Amino acid sequence: MSRFTESTGKYLMLIEEELEKSLGLVVHSPLRESIGYVFSMGGKRVRPLLTIFAAEAVGECSDDVLHAAAAIEILHNFTLVHDDIMDNADTRRGKATVHVTRGVNTAILVGDQMMALAYDLLEKCSGKHLRESLRIFNEGVKQVCDGQALDESLSKSDGSSMPNYVDMISKKTGALLMSSGKLGALLGGGTDEEIRLLGDFGLNIGIAFQILDDMLDLEGDSERFGKPRGLDIMEKKKNFMFLKAQQSLDAGGIAVINAAYRKMSVTENDVVAVRKVYRDGGILDAAKKEVSDYTSNALSSLSALRQSEGKDALVELANSLVRRKF
Amino acid sequence: MSRFTESTGKYLMLIEEELEKSLGLVVHSPLRESIGYVFSMGGKRVRPLLTIFAAEAVGECSDDVLHAAAAIEILHNFTLVHDDIMDNADTRRGKATVHVTRGVNTAILVGDQMMALAYDLLEKCSGKHLRESLRIFNEGVKQVCDGQALDESLSKSDGSSMPNYVDMISKKTGALLMSSGKLGALLGGGTDEEIRLLGDFGLNIGIAFQILDDMLDLEGDSERFGKPRGLDIMEKKKNFMFLKAQQSLDAGGIAVINAAYRKMSVTENDVVAVRKVYRDGGILDAAKKEVSDYTSNALSSLSALRQSEGKDALVELANSLVRRKF
Repeated sequence: MSRFTESTGKYLMLIEEELEKSLGLVVHSPLRESIGYVFSMGGKRVRPLLTIFAAEAVGECSDDVLHAAAAIEILHNFTLVHDDIMDNADTRRGKATVHVTRGVNTAILVGDQMMALAYDLLEKCSGKHLRESLRIFNEGVKQVCDGQALDESLSKSDGSSMPNYVDMISKKTGALLMSSGKLGALLGGGTDEEIRLLGDFGLNIGIAFQILDDMLDLEGDSERFGKPRGLDIMEKKKNFMFLKAQQSLDAGGIAVINAAYRKMSVTENDVVAVRKVYRDGGILDAAKKEVSDYTSNALSSLSALRQSEGKDALVELANSLVRRKF
Repeated sequence: MSRFTESTGKYLMLIEEELEKSLGLVVHSPLRESIGYVFSMGGKRVRPLLTIFAAEAVGECSDDVLHAAAAIEILHNFTLVHDDIMDNADTRRGKATVHVTRGVNTAILVGDQMMALAYDLLEKCSGKHLRESLRIFNEGVKQVCDGQALDESLSKSDGSSMPNYVDMISKKTGALLMSSGKLGALLGGGTDEEIRLLGDFGLNIGIAFQILDDMLDLEGDSERFGKPRGLDIMEKKKNFMFLKAQQSLDAGGIAVINAAYRKMSVTENDVVAVRKVYRDGGILDAAKKEVSDYTSNALSSLSALRQSEGKDALVELANSLVRRKF
């Protein structure tokens, strides 16, 4: 077993323990069982791992770091519960979503309660870092809300552009990973510069991750990802591929894509046609390059840090995210 | 103009200023305009006034107190935005609700963003009280979520009882007023005992306020309150009057109420009949007594405090809430 795998396994267990323990803070709540259900839906726990490894890259993983890591994961899960309502998503990670199993009203309240629970955990951070932790955390929450709002408005607008899109994913996906890196660095005892660098690392892997996600929508193994190929096209999402195509393709290529996006119901043939246009027109390659560039940016943020197990783990974490199979 | 009216007028202006200023913290957010809309919907601002007067009852109103007062009001408004979605309410204070004017998805995000904004303001509290402020605030948020969840489940359950109801309103309405009193006392420099007493004051006026609300549903001036008389009956709410009737009335009286609650659509005649049963059976008087008892409890929490303008203002605040006309 590699050092990274071993360390990740150990921390994943500690994260689950923290999440489980946090339920003690809502022990008398009628929403407690539903929050437990959200935790049981699992996930890669990328954000808390990032928080922990960032702390280890500048110092060490203390109880404060574990609290903050769990707080970030709870916050992330709260956004998923509310996003699933907004996106009308029936399943997540192969399990029925909260609003499907417990109704929309309960799902709204579960999200709200989880947000309070996240702050409850964060409040346990030791004295000197409490205010700064709160600032970093609040900034993450506000940006995630902004990102989701931008996503909603971009999907309805005809005038969305690549800069709008990058701004949107920076907030929707990047901001919380940025907060994860910063919080870990702060609570691990890092300098202002280290906090900044680890925030940049998080932001950049967040953007890379999201563009990869857009790419995998068409190129991924649909069984493995548990969603049909071309779901973004079916849902008329103006994702990276779509916007890059509008910038780069000739009129013929764009016509194929727009024809699919104008249909009431998109067929498998439409998805195949769009995929071919993306491949032949260099859009797939452009997306790959973009993922690689943002990943390089992330890794170069680490280069100024001294050698440490935490730094190695962050490199592995970045690579493992980008290695998701096609 | 009485001293209370003058002081309330001054603080109401400061509260509006704080709310307005808080928009600067979300200045680039696509949700900013909607949050401004929520603020513009107005309200009595009871919670921030309670925070401020509690501070004045033990010390003085500082910038910290104003930040916390605005944070509490923003938190309260966030719960209203989400509650209105859950209750399918088209209007609030005579204005169209956020989900009606901007869609459910935006309303969910507006609430989420407002919660973050409330914490943003709270984070401005000076060093020594930050952690305790957060604790009091978190407790309020969690209990409000619990209260709303209990309200949802009680309305669906056949077995709801008076103790369940009091527990529910203590959380749904009492908790945030309790947090308001405690926060004001803490940031005003109060002792632990003063913080406890002013928390109790808030909790008790919250409960009195809610029972009065239930009573005004049938006895209030429908034009003045902007909702039809007997709305709770139409919506089959198991409110104080209903539950008290189940405890105290004979079979004939209960039969009249249950007949109305079983109907698909309740008529004006049903409302009149239920109102008569409540009046003749002493349920109205029992509700009045309950409001009066909880108000007395609230006022007796103040009796241990030394004389001050803040204390006088709290007495006036309690009385003004209970004096709402029939």
